[in-house]
Amino acid sequence: MAQEALFRAQQIISPEVHDDSSVTFRLFAPNAESVQITGDFLPTVKMETPMGQMDGPGKADLVKDENGVWVYKSGVLKPELYNYSFIIDGFTTTDPNNPFLIRDVASATNIFIIGGGHADLFEVQDVAHGTVARRWYDSPGLGMDRRITIYTPPGYENSNEKFPVLYLLHGAGGDEEAWINLGRTSQIMDNLIAAGKAKPMIIAMPNGNVIQDAAPGEGSTGFYKPQFMVPKTMDGTYEANFMDIIKFVESNYRVIPDKAHRAIAGLSMGGYHTMHISRYYPNTFDYVGLFSAAIMPREDATGKVYSNIDETLQTQMDNGYKLYWIGIGKTDFLYDANKEFREKLDGMGMKYDYVETEGGHTWRNWRVYLSQVAPLLFK
Amino acid sequence: MAQEALFRAQQIISPEVHDDSSVTFRLFAPNAESVQITGDFLPTVKMETPMGQMDGPGKADLVKDENGVWVYKSGVLKPELYNYSFIIDGFTTTDPNNPFLIRDVASATNIFIIGGGHADLFEVQDVAHGTVARRWYDSPGLGMDRRITIYTPPGYENSNEKFPVLYLLHGAGGDEEAWINLGRTSQIMDNLIAAGKAKPMIIAMPNGNVIQDAAPGEGSTGFYKPQFMVPKTMDGTYEANFMDIIKFVESNYRVIPDKAHRAIAGLSMGGYHTMHISRYYPNTFDYVGLFSAAIMPREDATGKVYSNIDETLQTQMDNGYKLYWIGIGKTDFLYDANKEFREKLDGMGMKYDYVETEGGHTWRNWRVYLSQVAPLLFK
Repeated sequence: MAQEALFRAQQIISPEVHDDSSVTFRLFAPNAESVQITGDFLPTVKMETPMGQMDGPGKADLVKDENGVWVYKSGVLKPELYNYSFIIDGFTTTDPNNPFLIRDVASATNIFIIGGGHADLFEVQDVAHGTVARRWYDSPGLGMDRRITIYTPPGYENSNEKFPVLYLLHGAGGDEEAWINLGRTSQIMDNLIAAGKAKPMIIAMPNGNVIQDAAPGEGSTGFYKPQFMVPKTMDGTYEANFMDIIKFVESNYRVIPDKAHRAIAGLSMGGYHTMHISRYYPNTFDYVGLFSAAIMPREDATGKVYSNIDETLQTQMDNGYKLYWIGIGKTDFLYDANKEFREKLDGMGMKYDYVETEGGHTWRNWRVYLSQVAPLLFK
Repeated sequence: MAQEALFRAQQIISPEVHDDSSVTFRLFAPNAESVQITGDFLPTVKMETPMGQMDGPGKADLVKDENGVWVYKSGVLKPELYNYSFIIDGFTTTDPNNPFLIRDVASATNIFIIGGGHADLFEVQDVAHGTVARRWYDSPGLGMDRRITIYTPPGYENSNEKFPVLYLLHGAGGDEEAWINLGRTSQIMDNLIAAGKAKPMIIAMPNGNVIQDAAPGEGSTGFYKPQFMVPKTMDGTYEANFMDIIKFVESNYRVIPDKAHRAIAGLSMGGYHTMHISRYYPNTFDYVGLFSAAIMPREDATGKVYSNIDETLQTQMDNGYKLYWIGIGKTDFLYDANKEFREKLDGMGMKYDYVETEGGHTWRNWRVYLSQVAPLLFK
């Protein structure tokens, strides 16, 4: 009987995406009293968070069949990369039949893709693929070797061409694995480049937590539990030492080492880093992207990097640039902070492109922002 | 109250490795009626599997405290990389407080390391680190682009030196992610190279499932559920097309493209592949490693690759080699098959090194076999 149950459990397919883009989820848990599913394909609900009230994923009940398999069938879903978890008798956990797990800060969730439309960018298509390398670079400023993720475009290894570079920064609680895993960066870029929509470029995805050398399990701290707020992430240390990263990239890859061929973009805390790095080195980047940026320094950010914000922004403006892109969702808890920042730029006469989307502070938006910004770079 | 419970849950540290190398595991599940832990740090128990009776991980009960947190404290553990899962009211799942998950075939388990002894090789130490790249290569023989994981040793990018290559093959149900994640290959090699115990080398970790182009979520099939037995994995197709991989590596990396600087090793199905590839191309590898090898073809393996086993083995022996290494655990279900194979080699007078260890068909052994074999290569 135990063997039979095990066998039955192993045969379970979950999630099963149907031809009409509805999805069936299944979980073998004969002893459970209740099983729910929560995920961003369900209507959002309001939830309390440390950053105030935010939209959170909804919940739905699964129903147990005669074999002890709990089942939920969704409605027809729009093209998107979705995430979900199961809640078994109040305990939130992953789907044991879906091997695809992505870690966001300290939690792993399952994902699935409904193809079509913009979601086709997130899937591996039959196109030429770039290479993704995890390398280590020396940061003299931080006094340690640090891990970095580098995307090189298709054909990089077999050409002599020099390429532009996008520095792509993660948010609070993230690390050098965030953009490549949660952001589907390599899939998005392979597909945009193959379609002729984005120029071939190198993408450098560093770790923005200056007290760490690498993601959990990949660095000297071993299997630590990531925290949302990491000490020293927004005190100027990262910005002041960012040239270590640029120097590494420009001395280790075939790049065009000038302003016209450097872009920097980041989400949330990475948007904060992007804003401050790009004005602190005000003649370094022709392309700047702020994705749901945690925009202005906190009052306790008293480092040298923040001592002359207005002056360096003015210098950045005077030096000129090709693109200063700001994107945010209408329900993002940082919406007002970004509005204030835009008003500041308006007051200075500093030009920017502004995109306001539905939704909030989510990877769903950040993947789309990358897809929208990459085609604007290096043109 | 819900907020408070959430806060308490987020503060949970699990696993907590104590100074004396005992470990406390914790799980916040106030509604559960029973919570157990299962893992390879507990005494093994006999279990039935599709391959017959094997040693499986033991189980222990957690006890619930007044806050709804279930707790188990282990005894003092020896240095090792261990895995574990929780069983909540009969449902096997991962530890939500341990972000470090490794996928083995279709299941994710948590891991932790007790340092010291040989387990120090599995941790990221303060040494120079190699680069790990996920690349795509063209396989004309299989008619597709395929993903491969490549380790290059520390300093590779900033030298003109040419390096030897180890081709390292996974087992049934694995893919190009197996050796780098479950096998801790980059950590083992960084540490062995830094200690002067292994020569700097390139390690190519291809995908041995010829019907796939990549691991789940990384290829054209999307987020498929891996199976233990994949069609066409042991019918000769992989062996017959292995030169596509060697050609890719030798035309894309600075290598010494001769027999003296090529090694091949693999575990289980990958040991089978290793044995057959190394004799089918009998003058190609000076170093061969069979780790718990699934050694001889099944009766339905009638392809050209298997038509002349004895003759090609004889040719391989006549051509000469530096190392033919066979390792297996005493309780491995393939022990007898390996014994028969050794008797065959003895009968031919074909020399080999033989290492017999405790334990069975486990990654714990394969990490050790890699650690033992790498220092023997290219000397």
